[in-house]
Amino acid sequence: MVSKRQIKIITSLHQKKYRKSIGLFVAEGKKVIDEFLNSHFELDSLFTTDENLFAVHPKVTVISEAELKKISFLKTPNKALALFKISDDKIASAEGFIVALDDVRDPGNLGTIIRLCDWFGVKQLVCSEATVDCYNPKVIQATMGSLTRVNVVYTDLGKYLAEAKLPVFGAFMDGDNVYKTKLPKDGILVMGNEANGVSEEVSKLITQKISIPRFGEIQATESLNVATATGILLNEFKRSLFL
Amino acid sequence: MVSKRQIKIITSLHQKKYRKSIGLFVAEGKKVIDEFLNSHFELDSLFTTDENLFAVHPKVTVISEAELKKISFLKTPNKALALFKISDDKIASAEGFIVALDDVRDPGNLGTIIRLCDWFGVKQLVCSEATVDCYNPKVIQATMGSLTRVNVVYTDLGKYLAEAKLPVFGAFMDGDNVYKTKLPKDGILVMGNEANGVSEEVSKLITQKISIPRFGEIQATESLNVATATGILLNEFKRSLFL
Repeated sequence: MVSKRQIKIITSLHQKKYRKSIGLFVAEGKKVIDEFLNSHFELDSLFTTDENLFAVHPKVTVISEAELKKISFLKTPNKALALFKISDDKIASAEGFIVALDDVRDPGNLGTIIRLCDWFGVKQLVCSEATVDCYNPKVIQATMGSLTRVNVVYTDLGKYLAEAKLPVFGAFMDGDNVYKTKLPKDGILVMGNEANGVSEEVSKLITQKISIPRFGEIQATESLNVATATGILLNEFKRSLFL
Repeated sequence: MVSKRQIKIITSLHQKKYRKSIGLFVAEGKKVIDEFLNSHFELDSLFTTDENLFAVHPKVTVISEAELKKISFLKTPNKALALFKISDDKIASAEGFIVALDDVRDPGNLGTIIRLCDWFGVKQLVCSEATVDCYNPKVIQATMGSLTRVNVVYTDLGKYLAEAKLPVFGAFMDGDNVYKTKLPKDGILVMGNEANGVSEEVSKLITQKISIPRFGEIQATESLNVATATGILLNEFKRSLFL
């Protein structure tokens, strides 16, 4: 059974301001919930329509499908919804290889980028304050649990880059051909906003501008989607380690 | 002015069966419409709320914002909606470098893959019959006009691959490390369905299975999104041409 008060709280977590004040986020479906259960994230409560899906636990409540529908953010609710505690503010270190995002706004793009970081062994993703919140329900579902393995930190990106002692690479349409660029093992890769690219402030802190050469016709000026470009550039940084 | 009959026809184009029987598809927003106007696609009609947006033409009708709202598939209609004629069934050639999709179902993924083909100069995308329709409105908006430069053909993929005289590469979780694989200039790259990968029938026709090595922790078995993986593999095939 879910109380009216609980429904109100859970549905409010769709909005960042309530996630921040309440300190909880929503994960749905057994697969995603299991990833968070097997991580450092702390469970607050879990609602499921199938009592056999999870081990008996004081925090698990069996509910009806109608109740799940009331609290779910998905079009087709997926048997279970859990609330986890948002990790305390983490510190952005500047060691190893790091990806930084300058105002990426689309939850699907952030989710894909977190999965890519996980795939390529990037442990830290540093985001500007205006980048979409990683606890946004769409991001949580798109990451498929990768958020449990990638440390996502929100900070003043300009200040962070100015203080970092690593080379800073940025993706620009007019950057150097990435295939001909010597890419170090450690460094920071900055990806910009979907519409405007890297901001002027952050551009000043870039050590080297890089770009993926365009093979198609010249008349077509459209850029690549930011998540796709992040995948290709991460592949370029990491591929030499596997050769 | 848009008639009730026109509204009924246009909104029906959301569904593949009506696009097929009527022979038209919808493109929205000046940018996307301009790409189709400057291509081999033939305009059927164009509706806009701003009479200065397009040149005066018998096929252009100025309408109200309320009318545009009635025919638009977008949450926030974008000043113009056009109907273009669907190209007649094209023939799938097997020359040069080709991407083939085995039942990719998500319109966003297909849109991203068409943009990637355009970026990397791939002129032909061969799709299995069950792959999502490239005239789906979500695909049209996601491609940002790239569909005017990439020839998308639907066919019996098994038959096509069996008859093609090119080496066939397929993306598999357990394939050979792509970084260590000799990749030819001409060939076919097969990408599989989001959930199930490449089908058993098509698997038999693969010359070489390839995979993007995973750099993250071993416990994480999640695969990459199919569009992201296509971007990384296309980059691997094409990068040597730009070195």
